[in-house]
Amino acid sequence: MNIAVLGTGVVGNAIASKLVSLGHEVKMGSRTPDNEKAAAWVKRAGALASQGTFAGAASFGEVVFVCTNGAATLDALHAAGAQPLAGKVLIDVSNPLDFSKGMPPRLFTASDESLGERVQRAFPDAKVVKALNTVNCEVMVDPGRVGGGDHDMFVAGDDAAAKGRVVEILTGWFGWKTVHDLGDITGARGMEMYLPLWLRLWGSLKTADFNVRVVRG
Amino acid sequence: MNIAVLGTGVVGNAIASKLVSLGHEVKMGSRTPDNEKAAAWVKRAGALASQGTFAGAASFGEVVFVCTNGAATLDALHAAGAQPLAGKVLIDVSNPLDFSKGMPPRLFTASDESLGERVQRAFPDAKVVKALNTVNCEVMVDPGRVGGGDHDMFVAGDDAAAKGRVVEILTGWFGWKTVHDLGDITGARGMEMYLPLWLRLWGSLKTADFNVRVVRG
Repeated sequence: MNIAVLGTGVVGNAIASKLVSLGHEVKMGSRTPDNEKAAAWVKRAGALASQGTFAGAASFGEVVFVCTNGAATLDALHAAGAQPLAGKVLIDVSNPLDFSKGMPPRLFTASDESLGERVQRAFPDAKVVKALNTVNCEVMVDPGRVGGGDHDMFVAGDDAAAKGRVVEILTGWFGWKTVHDLGDITGARGMEMYLPLWLRLWGSLKTADFNVRVVRG
Repeated sequence: MNIAVLGTGVVGNAIASKLVSLGHEVKMGSRTPDNEKAAAWVKRAGALASQGTFAGAASFGEVVFVCTNGAATLDALHAAGAQPLAGKVLIDVSNPLDFSKGMPPRLFTASDESLGERVQRAFPDAKVVKALNTVNCEVMVDPGRVGGGDHDMFVAGDDAAAKGRVVEILTGWFGWKTVHDLGDITGARGMEMYLPLWLRLWGSLKTADFNVRVVRG
């Protein structure tokens, strides 16, 4: 499948590399067509990898992963354009982290609207599904590296078919065992507001190789 | 030990009853000395149980559990007064939930200051420890009812000795197996901002008998 990965940071690299390793053609999108980090990734990732602008990548992909810094997510998607995103599954991995006031980062939007909702509101014809933002990028694409994979992922989105497709990607491609459907895109609030707890656990555990498992009565 | 439980709702009832069952003398505090819900609890709980005003309970307790509705927490503590709280371990179980705009509730304070921090700021001589707010009240005092107790609690607070005492209460009295220390009271942000995810899981699991376990790499 042709897939777009928007963003050239560690998250974009991890997801794009995983997708290429599964045999998919992946175009990494950035502000400029010749971004150096994207070029370095293409060189490492081989024949199935390519790079382009946000618009070029969005046009290329049948599915679009949004792996930008949360503060840049809407700008990147506006650069991609509404038309190339229309009707597509848009997997929003980004977090609304604001580092401008120091560490730990605050969230620049939280209780009243999630970043996932802002994305869906700005691009009503895209099928936005929030996913993967609750774990470190290495865990996203290799859940088995933590506790034998015995921990959980969440999804939220308005379009049931799109959400089902994302669950297939998470379980069938990435190896997640359990994915909890948190309902419509407002469920992204819970997934994003979990980040401050994740950040504290990262500090106390001194590793990003962790996640939570939901234990039932 | 003499213990104060501020609040007459389901959380206050669950914690106060558990403490009495362990042989502690418990005074349930409320706005008025003759609160009907507190009186009903005293009648059920027996000789170790008593009721009083917030100030009366706070004076009585060597340890103070704050089990009020989050929107009422600071008012209740101001009614209790700074002097009776000074030097005491104050376990803040309350959540900053705002139901005024419908369900699910929003948080009335979140990313920039937690309710736990507001409490510590308003009562600098109290030793505030955030705990137990991340689970349903029945799970708080009986973690074994969910998955054999194989799930985790968190604490945050500025005073290390107070936090250590709370961890003893959680593990020795209430039966928690694993308690993660999230650092100073600003760690309460993570514990409170977890609530929207808890609420969504409650909706999807259709039971409040659940919790999360931290799984490590």
